[in-house]
Amino acid sequence: MSKVTSDMSLSLDGFTAGPGQSLDLPIGEGVGESLHRWMFEEPELHAEAIAAITAAGAFIMGRNMFGPGRGEWDLGWQGWWGEEPPYHGPVFVLTHHAREPLEMKGGTTFHFVTDGIEAALERAREAAGGRDVSIAGGAHTVNQYLAAGLIDELRLHVAPVVLGRGERLLAGVGAFDLEPVGTPSGSALITHLTYRPEKG
Amino acid sequence: MSKVTSDMSLSLDGFTAGPGQSLDLPIGEGVGESLHRWMFEEPELHAEAIAAITAAGAFIMGRNMFGPGRGEWDLGWQGWWGEEPPYHGPVFVLTHHAREPLEMKGGTTFHFVTDGIEAALERAREAAGGRDVSIAGGAHTVNQYLAAGLIDELRLHVAPVVLGRGERLLAGVGAFDLEPVGTPSGSALITHLTYRPEKG
Repeated sequence: MSKVTSDMSLSLDGFTAGPGQSLDLPIGEGVGESLHRWMFEEPELHAEAIAAITAAGAFIMGRNMFGPGRGEWDLGWQGWWGEEPPYHGPVFVLTHHAREPLEMKGGTTFHFVTDGIEAALERAREAAGGRDVSIAGGAHTVNQYLAAGLIDELRLHVAPVVLGRGERLLAGVGAFDLEPVGTPSGSALITHLTYRPEKG
Repeated sequence: MSKVTSDMSLSLDGFTAGPGQSLDLPIGEGVGESLHRWMFEEPELHAEAIAAITAAGAFIMGRNMFGPGRGEWDLGWQGWWGEEPPYHGPVFVLTHHAREPLEMKGGTTFHFVTDGIEAALERAREAAGGRDVSIAGGAHTVNQYLAAGLIDELRLHVAPVVLGRGERLLAGVGAFDLEPVGTPSGSALITHLTYRPEKG
């Protein structure tokens, strides 16, 4: 059965991005490559984790992950990823501002959803065609889905860095137990931990 | 060469204890056995991790870990651990209030140190007789030693629970890289992660 998953790279102190995210600093101040080096420098070593991320049939992200803009859309903005984003499937962007779907090269289409996280999940499930739905980020969006009990499998990729400040994952999500899945693994750049949140 | 180590059990969201610690709730509200079950329910499975904790020759703890009292000492209070505490060696308690050393059964002696974390570490190193010094907790004390760059090996024992509030480890310690030591391991109750903080 298809699952709702989320893969998040985060610091040892729980941050997925620094403060002050902007056009010039998409992941915020003080972060640099520290959280995502593993994907670019050691792709073979982490092939299984990377394959799991890209296995989803549809993706959901917050507007802040799609771009630095706020308020009404700048229709020239087409995301951070250039002409051919790495999703290769439908991506549902949570926003308060309606916008026509945006079709990119390589199979990625951005859909803009204005009626909340449950509605976005419903549309993503339909679009995923039986494959998993991935909550792609950022922290605030994943926290919303966690708080609502809507994530089946949380895959944390913990980088060996303390950032001290930024966007915190697992904040404001209440208190709950989780069930570890598989065994932890990793390299000097990252530790992979997978959990199933227990449903209240 | 002997090291300064710290073993901390914490929740996935980074808390080592809940709020409202008291005589009746030494680990605070909402925590129960969740963080420490692994030591009591699966001691054989985690024999190596437990042996590493007890290998230290001297220990340092904050006053809040020694007892719920504040201000002047209640001399009747001899710690949470009964007549024979599990340390079996010298334990240096950080406090603002002087007190004579307290000798317990089984080799544990509590010494009360009023001149700060560096002085306590110096005394602990001398007392450890070439073995490691363990910063035993709580979170605030470990954070102070981390911020001062005085911990050589940080061993985190991450429980599969989100607590949502409490005493946070790795808070107020600045920003720094760490080097993972060995490979992560664990069971359904706990994940062991070991790091060396890089010295600025």
